[in-house]
Amino acid sequence: MADKSEKMKARLPRGLVDRSPQDIRAVDEMIAKIRAVYELYGFEPADQPLIEYTDALGKFLPDQDRPNEGVFSFQDDDEQWLSLRYDLTAPMARFVAENYDRLPKPFRSYRAGWVFRNEKPGPGRFRQFMQFDADTVGTPGVAADAEMAMMMADVMEALGIARGDYVIRVNNRKILDGVLEGIGVTQDWQKLAVLRAIDKADKFPLSEVKKLLGDGRWSEENEEGDFTRGAGLNADQIEVVISMTNSLSAVGAELTETEYLRRAVLRRGGIAGQFAWSITQFPGHSVLENPKFIQGEDELAQIQELCARAGYGPDRVKIDPSVVRGLEYYTGPVYEAELLAEIPNEDGKIVRFGSVGGGGRYDGLVSRFRGEPVPATGFSIGVSRLMTALKNLGKLDTSDVIQPVVVLVMDKDTQSLGRYQKIVSDLRRAGIRAEIYLGGAGMKAQLKYADRRGSPVAVIQGGNEREAGQVQLKDLIEGARQAAAIADHAEYKEARPGQVTVAEADLVAEVRKILDAQAQERARGGQ
Amino acid sequence: MADKSEKMKARLPRGLVDRSPQDIRAVDEMIAKIRAVYELYGFEPADQPLIEYTDALGKFLPDQDRPNEGVFSFQDDDEQWLSLRYDLTAPMARFVAENYDRLPKPFRSYRAGWVFRNEKPGPGRFRQFMQFDADTVGTPGVAADAEMAMMMADVMEALGIARGDYVIRVNNRKILDGVLEGIGVTQDWQKLAVLRAIDKADKFPLSEVKKLLGDGRWSEENEEGDFTRGAGLNADQIEVVISMTNSLSAVGAELTETEYLRRAVLRRGGIAGQFAWSITQFPGHSVLENPKFIQGEDELAQIQELCARAGYGPDRVKIDPSVVRGLEYYTGPVYEAELLAEIPNEDGKIVRFGSVGGGGRYDGLVSRFRGEPVPATGFSIGVSRLMTALKNLGKLDTSDVIQPVVVLVMDKDTQSLGRYQKIVSDLRRAGIRAEIYLGGAGMKAQLKYADRRGSPVAVIQGGNEREAGQVQLKDLIEGARQAAAIADHAEYKEARPGQVTVAEADLVAEVRKILDAQAQERARGGQ
Repeated sequence: MADKSEKMKARLPRGLVDRSPQDIRAVDEMIAKIRAVYELYGFEPADQPLIEYTDALGKFLPDQDRPNEGVFSFQDDDEQWLSLRYDLTAPMARFVAENYDRLPKPFRSYRAGWVFRNEKPGPGRFRQFMQFDADTVGTPGVAADAEMAMMMADVMEALGIARGDYVIRVNNRKILDGVLEGIGVTQDWQKLAVLRAIDKADKFPLSEVKKLLGDGRWSEENEEGDFTRGAGLNADQIEVVISMTNSLSAVGAELTETEYLRRAVLRRGGIAGQFAWSITQFPGHSVLENPKFIQGEDELAQIQELCARAGYGPDRVKIDPSVVRGLEYYTGPVYEAELLAEIPNEDGKIVRFGSVGGGGRYDGLVSRFRGEPVPATGFSIGVSRLMTALKNLGKLDTSDVIQPVVVLVMDKDTQSLGRYQKIVSDLRRAGIRAEIYLGGAGMKAQLKYADRRGSPVAVIQGGNEREAGQVQLKDLIEGARQAAAIADHAEYKEARPGQVTVAEADLVAEVRKILDAQAQERARGGQ
Repeated sequence: MADKSEKMKARLPRGLVDRSPQDIRAVDEMIAKIRAVYELYGFEPADQPLIEYTDALGKFLPDQDRPNEGVFSFQDDDEQWLSLRYDLTAPMARFVAENYDRLPKPFRSYRAGWVFRNEKPGPGRFRQFMQFDADTVGTPGVAADAEMAMMMADVMEALGIARGDYVIRVNNRKILDGVLEGIGVTQDWQKLAVLRAIDKADKFPLSEVKKLLGDGRWSEENEEGDFTRGAGLNADQIEVVISMTNSLSAVGAELTETEYLRRAVLRRGGIAGQFAWSITQFPGHSVLENPKFIQGEDELAQIQELCARAGYGPDRVKIDPSVVRGLEYYTGPVYEAELLAEIPNEDGKIVRFGSVGGGGRYDGLVSRFRGEPVPATGFSIGVSRLMTALKNLGKLDTSDVIQPVVVLVMDKDTQSLGRYQKIVSDLRRAGIRAEIYLGGAGMKAQLKYADRRGSPVAVIQGGNEREAGQVQLKDLIEGARQAAAIADHAEYKEARPGQVTVAEADLVAEVRKILDAQAQERARGGQ
């Protein structure tokens, strides 16, 4: 036994959490509902290990000085760098590339699992969290992207989120790329920096976003200050990007459903027309002739029409050119599932909840390994974040979980224990959750334990009852109610007494009777 | 797009595997069945993160030279060592210690999850694998150990393993400890080395086991040879340990059920008598007076009686003093679930399958953090290993998973795609798994894709059918059968044709008709 003086402190590294039974049950229920949608769409389960070669993950190459930049990394016996996966997409791409010839193409798969980020944790930001992804590899056309957007909408509704309380917003990376090329921004690092700057638009004031688009920004979050290098745009270019972001986000917002459907049918007149109007408002309107821009808006028009024809109007899947996804590997359409309801977020603040998942087309990720084009598209749901939202929306009810009946231990000799053992066995055989109290405490503490567990019934058999072949059953839900109600309650007590003595042979039937009465009470909203 | 010349090789680090859809479904089914038993016994779900402080895991303390000894370890930003968990028990102990005051005691919980070992992988030995544990913390008496053994038996039967095809073997670490103390072996490292040597008895010939008990053993598995330090026992001591292991293992084997029950009631006359007989056969019989030995056999007698009274005879839970569990932290009863059936193991060899899980009492693990005694007992199921066994026993049938109906894409204009989209939407709304073929290939390749997916039905609509408001349905299961049967089959074909043309409005009903016919065929054993 450890000496008190040298005991170790039980603690978790920051950014990691233990999950409660309620959260585990809620996530299981949620995942089952999401899985049912993925299955209905014809996707197959897949699963990759949590450890990959660092270079296969592709985003980070650890060096000797800072091997843990963003990911958790460690060296194998043969000195090769391994990392914990930071998402489920990169390992999936490795798997598909490795097994390309034997897999059906398109390869449609889904996977749920833990991913890890070696970042500074904060409220609602963890270093281990769960994602639930679906991906289609080997699909060149945007019909696959449209399908992803529609499937996300179906997932939201399968989880009980009402139409109008969510929207799937769709944009195309090619639009932004085209605009940037049109105004002379061609370097990859610049594009990425612009992307990240726009992504900050809901966090920072405009003046700070402009700094990120220009020379850079000193953060004021700590004493020393951290410098974030900017995208290096000049004032005119910054103006174009800012006005584009603003005016394009207005495009999606102002469309009525009728208008949206009319345009979906007319197609080219729709989005392009809208864009033309927006983009001619600012100096760099040569972007309208940029081939990437044209392709991007054409693809969005197709997605819009495919969704409309399948019955997914802009109340569910909405073209919205303000959507920016932070990940570097997207090459075409990007999409985001957003909850519109105003509910508490992870920090307890009432807010428009925002993004619970998203994804896009990543045509370059599998081809890194193959040396040939392998188009692909997919999305990822942030499981913990979505669960928080569903809980706050009242959509995850695990109150139907019945806690175990507790059989109290009044005598500890082996013969008595054997008899208690038989009682729990009988209850379990009847499908009733049950346990013997196996701690070391007396009767009062045992009842307190049963209370703490939320047990519906306590079974008590002392020496006298044993001799008489009887047991006492204590209705703990009713007991708690009676304890809570100070007022006179005689009539009620008579109807459903808190404690009964029954023959041991009738034990299972009598426990069942109490459980049924409690269930009816719950159904009446009595609890 | 990556240049072919500089493409990266897609590969997994050794000892890690991608799981197939069949394996994922099989594990999910298995876990659901195990979970139902744990829940019935009143256990609650729990979940800890995969990363812990290395010192909190307790077994290994990485040094600068070999930080990865047995576990995967890495340093946090603040220089503290973190590790991936190597089992689920150590993180559970950390969690209970950290939250001790707010948890009900006993604390009864279960958890399934990935664990990691940084070891040399081999056939059936992986560096990432799944365990499914149940633990009771705060239970001093062996009734909790007896419950664990009985619950393991119930798990085996819930998985469809027939009585007689498995046995839960129970021993007590105190027996071995008492014998070793009785012959003068008192050092902890020596006890551990003896334990590990006995654990090797089914792998090595006797002469090699004796070396491990004595001065040590040079492995001949590689050129250089690895030296394993021995327990340092002298010849007499070795003789005692060897004969004890042999004769004690005979104790369990020779008991008939009647005899077992009789002894369970007579108790002290039972196991002690048997042990006395065995142990007086060899020189060190002072062990019979060793208090640890006496306590150990007393506890086993109690477990035997508790199980017998609850109806778990030696055909299910059997006292078997030859059981040794390798882990250092056990302090009392240990138990092991063994499959007796002779089936192929992970290497494909037909063998008596052996252990699929086990556990024991670990009274020191939580108290490391608390500085006060916190008794606990629990077991762990090796999920992948048990799944292999169940598959080979024919107990995991996932053939009832129906693959998706595939809607072929004959025309790629957005209007046609929209129409195909409506067809899949209709099928999905009716609960039928369905997908549009979203690859880039022609009709023949599309049918091959449907075949490869194991699709039951292909839906085909070209321009002519579209104009006529019709679709063709191809019964792919029937088609495969017809292709396989070269013999004349005209009558059969007539009864269930491989291809029909139906009105688009009847699509869902007609697809359902084919699926029903296929289901009947399967039920008749036709597939």
